[in-house]
Amino acid sequence: MQLKIDSLIRADSELTHQNTSSVPIILMTRIRLARNLSGHNFPNHSEVEKSAEVFELCRKAIESAPEMGSPTTVRMEDLSTMEKKILVERHLVSPELIESTAGSGVVINGDQSCAVMINEEDHLRIQSMLTGFHLDKVWSTIDALDDSLEKKLDFAYSEELGFLTACPSNVGTGLRASVMMHLPGLVISKNMEKVIRAVNQIGLVVRGWMGEGSDASGSVFQISNQQTLGESEEAILKRLGNVLKTVRVQEENARSRILQTDQNRILDRIGRAYGILRNGHLLSSGEGMSLLSLIRLGADFGMFPKDTRCLVDRLFIESQPAHVQYLAESEIESAARDSLRASFMRKNFRDIPEPDFESAST
Amino acid sequence: MQLKIDSLIRADSELTHQNTSSVPIILMTRIRLARNLSGHNFPNHSEVEKSAEVFELCRKAIESAPEMGSPTTVRMEDLSTMEKKILVERHLVSPELIESTAGSGVVINGDQSCAVMINEEDHLRIQSMLTGFHLDKVWSTIDALDDSLEKKLDFAYSEELGFLTACPSNVGTGLRASVMMHLPGLVISKNMEKVIRAVNQIGLVVRGWMGEGSDASGSVFQISNQQTLGESEEAILKRLGNVLKTVRVQEENARSRILQTDQNRILDRIGRAYGILRNGHLLSSGEGMSLLSLIRLGADFGMFPKDTRCLVDRLFIESQPAHVQYLAESEIESAARDSLRASFMRKNFRDIPEPDFESAST
Repeated sequence: MQLKIDSLIRADSELTHQNTSSVPIILMTRIRLARNLSGHNFPNHSEVEKSAEVFELCRKAIESAPEMGSPTTVRMEDLSTMEKKILVERHLVSPELIESTAGSGVVINGDQSCAVMINEEDHLRIQSMLTGFHLDKVWSTIDALDDSLEKKLDFAYSEELGFLTACPSNVGTGLRASVMMHLPGLVISKNMEKVIRAVNQIGLVVRGWMGEGSDASGSVFQISNQQTLGESEEAILKRLGNVLKTVRVQEENARSRILQTDQNRILDRIGRAYGILRNGHLLSSGEGMSLLSLIRLGADFGMFPKDTRCLVDRLFIESQPAHVQYLAESEIESAARDSLRASFMRKNFRDIPEPDFESAST
Repeated sequence: MQLKIDSLIRADSELTHQNTSSVPIILMTRIRLARNLSGHNFPNHSEVEKSAEVFELCRKAIESAPEMGSPTTVRMEDLSTMEKKILVERHLVSPELIESTAGSGVVINGDQSCAVMINEEDHLRIQSMLTGFHLDKVWSTIDALDDSLEKKLDFAYSEELGFLTACPSNVGTGLRASVMMHLPGLVISKNMEKVIRAVNQIGLVVRGWMGEGSDASGSVFQISNQQTLGESEEAILKRLGNVLKTVRVQEENARSRILQTDQNRILDRIGRAYGILRNGHLLSSGEGMSLLSLIRLGADFGMFPKDTRCLVDRLFIESQPAHVQYLAESEIESAARDSLRASFMRKNFRDIPEPDFESAST
């Protein structure tokens, strides 16, 4: 199984390859659908043998879906803790899946843009993601995949409520769409709390990079819908898209203001981030995220070559703790990880030229 | 008068020229002698006309002393606050002189290795200094200068006590020898307090970079004798020299231990210092000192070209607040200074290659 994880890490995936069409402010768009098999208990109330049965039913259906070209299937029970965490860090499985009991696993397609979890909270969590801001495109992919699966599996569905799910909060469409945004301008100008309150008031949720609270590392936030009932998929996506466009404009404005009123301070932070990534020898995961975030901002300002943004997006993932342990080829303690992470950053920044402070603009 | 200060700043002085024989751990050796004219009140008890008379007597004697080749004479009353502070930052006058009343000034020789203050606490404060550890050499220079002045001026002297001075603590030899040491190893390993206590116990004093308390910025400390009475000049210098050699060995040992036991942490600090000096856009005077201090340590470790140490020693002086104001050609506030200081550092570090972490050793 080590081999499967190996090939996943080494492959050019949607989120980590170097030629992705990475854009300012928006890192990626992701949609997931919660589905369950009719006539089977939800995973939390299922016996071991029944879960194994569900796993096999689902696995076969998923692996043969045309949208899942070159699939890799991974059972959680076959993985080490480090391997499970790597899948979380790559956004391929949820933190909940790796805590879950027997019969859980994931099927991942060739470019790692689609991943279907089996026996998480629901029998199926279908997920599709793309770098950049692509709600429509991701929706059409996942909608097609959902249709393919529906042909082979009997989904629990109520005419009145829609799709049935283990948790009432997902009943209906079972859809959660989220867009991961890079909002350093709003964070630096201390406007992020205000934005979060406004976004919450219209029924959307803001989470951090790894789904944690709103105090996001690297100024990376996920904004997603909360409601799944009483609204069509198209209506949910349209409303989310409109809010995200507004947040993007607010971030753009915040950046312009910072460059106008506090230019030295922001150039100082970007310059120092570059200097430390290039020459540091100890780097925690949190500081790494913060520094990379400043480099991404610098790239958006035109201070670094365009493809530096792709590098940052890859390093956001590959500098996480489990990925660094993978580099070490063993589980290592935090201090050794910080040293290895710094050395990994130095190597990756070796060919990035010094910031071009003169051309900083929005 | 602006012109005189200008030429002092632009000249290749003993402490700031690029080809000085800068060595590890020891920045410079300095000796001063306190002298007074017999038959004249000490400066603090002197009337304005009398002080002017003393100034003229002294000035003529000093300017014609052969040790004072190409002298520049500066009257404090002719200088702006910024200009006075520049002289302090260059270690040419004491902070006390620039606060003093009428009739005070300084005569500085061509390479700024000798400076004689007039009407500070005493009528004359004769000072000589050299880069590196040179108690004997500095003593022979200042001894000769003292002899030259004695031929033209009638020094207040008591057979019983020695030279008479305004403050009883200087009576006798009137000699204070100090060596400025760079002790980051002892500071990082938290042994500096212990060293200061030991040094104090044998009658020596430890001060910071600008004569302030022991909490020295940049890990730069001045160690000097306290006693001036009841001991010959040679005995004072010998005792001081022995203590300094011991402190130097302790610093060397501390550095070896750090490189052995905490190599990543010290390489991290040196690497980050380089990265920030090269790319930062805001730099306070205190942070500047700390970063330069780490670069000097890195140069001692062989991580930078040899002449980087001379650059650091010059920047220790030229990045001080008044020197930065001089760069701006006007008095500017602290935030503008921090920006200008950062830009000055970036310029000076433009040609310093990245740290060679592989060759770090003591």
